[in-house]
Amino acid sequence: MTALPSLMPPIEYEDATPQVRAVYDDIRATRKTDFINNFWKVLAHDPAMLARTWEKLKAVMAEGALDPLTKELIYVAVSATNGCEYCTYSHTAAARAKGASDAMLMEALAVAAAANETNRLANALRPQVDAAFLPRAGGG
Amino acid sequence: MTALPSLMPPIEYEDATPQVRAVYDDIRATRKTDFINNFWKVLAHDPAMLARTWEKLKAVMAEGALDPLTKELIYVAVSATNGCEYCTYSHTAAARAKGASDAMLMEALAVAAAANETNRLANALRPQVDAAFLPRAGGG
Amino acid sequence: MTALPSLMPPIEYEDATPQVRAVYDDIRATRKTDFINNFWKVLAHDPAMLARTWEKLKAVMAEGALDPLTKELIYVAVSATNGCEYCTYSHTAAARAKGASDAMLMEALAVAAAANETNRLANALRPQVDAAFLPRAGGG
Amino acid sequence: MTALPSLMPPIEYEDATPQVRAVYDDIRATRKTDFINNFWKVLAHDPAMLARTWEKLKAVMAEGALDPLTKELIYVAVSATNGCEYCTYSHTAAARAKGASDAMLMEALAVAAAANETNRLANALRPQVDAAFLPRAGGG
Amino acid sequence: MTALPSLMPPIEYEDATPQVRAVYDDIRATRKTDFINNFWKVLAHDPAMLARTWEKLKAVMAEGALDPLTKELIYVAVSATNGCEYCTYSHTAAARAKGASDAMLMEALAVAAAANETNRLANALRPQVDAAFLPRAGGG
Amino acid sequence: MTALPSLMPPIEYEDATPQVRAVYDDIRATRKTDFINNFWKVLAHDPAMLARTWEKLKAVMAEGALDPLTKELIYVAVSATNGCEYCTYSHTAAARAKGASDAMLMEALAVAAAANETNRLANALRPQVDAAFLPRAGGG
Repeated sequence: MTALPSLMPPIEYEDATPQVRAVYDDIRATRKTDFINNFWKVLAHDPAMLARTWEKLKAVMAEGALDPLTKELIYVAVSATNGCEYCTYSHTAAARAKGASDAMLMEALAVAAAANETNRLANALRPQVDAAFLPRAGGG
Repeated sequence: MTALPSLMPPIEYEDATPQVRAVYDDIRATRKTDFINNFWKVLAHDPAMLARTWEKLKAVMAEGALDPLTKELIYVAVSATNGCEYCTYSHTAAARAKGASDAMLMEALAVAAAANETNRLANALRPQVDAAFLPRAGGG
Repeated sequence: MTALPSLMPPIEYEDATPQVRAVYDDIRATRKTDFINNFWKVLAHDPAMLARTWEKLKAVMAEGALDPLTKELIYVAVSATNGCEYCTYSHTAAARAKGASDAMLMEALAVAAAANETNRLANALRPQVDAAFLPRAGGG
Repeated sequence: MTALPSLMPPIEYEDATPQVRAVYDDIRATRKTDFINNFWKVLAHDPAMLARTWEKLKAVMAEGALDPLTKELIYVAVSATNGCEYCTYSHTAAARAKGASDAMLMEALAVAAAANETNRLANALRPQVDAAFLPRAGGG
Repeated sequence: MTALPSLMPPIEYEDATPQVRAVYDDIRATRKTDFINNFWKVLAHDPAMLARTWEKLKAVMAEGALDPLTKELIYVAVSATNGCEYCTYSHTAAARAKGASDAMLMEALAVAAAANETNRLANALRPQVDAAFLPRAGGG
Repeated sequence: MTALPSLMPPIEYEDATPQVRAVYDDIRATRKTDFINNFWKVLAHDPAMLARTWEKLKAVMAEGALDPLTKELIYVAVSATNGCEYCTYSHTAAARAKGASDAMLMEALAVAAAANETNRLANALRPQVDAAFLPRAGGG
């Protein structure tokens, strides 16, 4: 496969500073794999951004009120909306690794696609927000 | 509340053609409520588009491989990504009606926001898609 | 030409279910060609979505108050705005097949590009919507 | 109508410099109206940007290989895609002034909305661009 | 000024948990003001997200290889591109507080707007990336 | 490197009309290089658009209240936000040519990415714009 080269070259583990290696090590431990994907290797040009971004992702994608698979499907839906090539490949793979079936992926995309359609109809026709949709005083 | 008027005025039930009323009736029956929100009332200026869009939404948002609440959270995430005001109000309300707690909504937004952030880092740094993320021959 | 593989493999006619073949047949009959493009072949992983999307597109792109060529040029303009690679190639080809000249395509792009520019100036400077632009009571 | 104030206040004709007045005069002459809408009045804080943007718009929106109404419909479609409030009001009004009927506007929006939907399906599923869609050597 | 209510109500200092107050206190200390803007008060519904987001922003917007004003202008440009109403108001105010003149703001917007224009021409016409623009092996 | 062909073929100097050559000559003189990048060569299919776009870019990117490097960093940030492949390669190269270090580029991207994140949180939670952020009467 030939493709345009990355705008910042990936930094491999053996070429990384101790600060970067610590993040790589935590990615490996958290994900239970030796594999570090290229996204992190290019972010490593700014070790503070690498650490911050990884810490944020680890917290955001963890089990919480929503399960990790639901979160991956939201990630895929947003990445498709933004047209990010790398992200659609990496997060579709992550969703599959977390148990997404073809049917689940196709349904998530159908929702994302439908939202993109009706978002534009609403943006163009500018219906007034119905009073029933407004949050009540004192709560969301 | 004062706001800019809708670019197409809403068509109320009593002013609607039989074709439009049939869609309104199905919205009410499906959602088990008398309430028709303004989005459908402005779409009613093109009865074929109204019918098509409602049929699509009904199918896409129904229980399937994913449950309706998961689908609403994806809808909210995409609407926030696109910045659609009407859609964020209406689908946040729909998500709450389907059982979303504050914590679930906040987590869905955290994922959507993080995706918007990393999408741009990937778009800018252009890491090559790792071979491990490519779908295997013969399947997704 | 080497490129990243599709995230869902295309489903060819001979491997398709009767439900999918019926859509493929209608695409061929409507477009008066044997050619089925890859977009439909990947959508075929969800036969209901395939059928729904094709029915919608066939209705939306048909002759109506606007002619099919005008509609294709709008499609190209939106696809360029969203940066969808597949869509810019397929709908530019469709526009040419419907009679678009180089000059028509370049003018449509010039409008789309100018809209993207002034949209951001308006988004940033937030001029108040002039009263003259508001729809009159009782009609759009 | 109450709304947030513009981030730059509009500059009225009587407060404008001769350079800005010259652009206002040309807008009035070209459009055969005394009305100057707020977009130009806020751009007037940078007279060179005002002049450049007006000259560009005048050229881009003029009769050419496409007629001015087709161009306004493309403008509305892009503005809805981007979610620009001011632009959807101003260019919907402009489209009506150039002869757009309700049916024409609704069809243009249906195309824009459908494009936003299929753009995301293509972005997510990444079908390979069909060879039939590639431009031939030596021409577009 | 009347406007739609926030989808999550702001949490005031006196109603906040100690964890949230600690972030509010740091915002006040860092910015040398008692003022906490509504963005943080709605994020406070998820104290971990509040803390994470504030820590990230504080680090990203600090003096570094770029000065804080340059960073605010980039923030305004991206917010205008995305059409985020709250963000254009808040970051335009922040840019002014850091010394941005009218001329600097108008120039930053002119660049952002031009980028939005040429981005779409490039997205539509798909020129091949020139070899001269590719990063050299071994470095960005 | 193999890639999809441009949707309009580049027009080389020797095949260009005098009107197009005049623009190419000005690009070379302004940039002090013989190199004309592919963006301009595909725009050349519409000589008036080529001339208009080049004149605009030359004016917008020139030294003014902001220096040319700051402007390139804004350009890169917007291009990453929009996901424009050609533009991220060409403007990252331009930023480096104007003196951007790796650290400056990474910081600009960190700001752009953070803005994309908080833009979506604001779009979703809809905090009211604080009175403190509103421009005062009589000035921006």
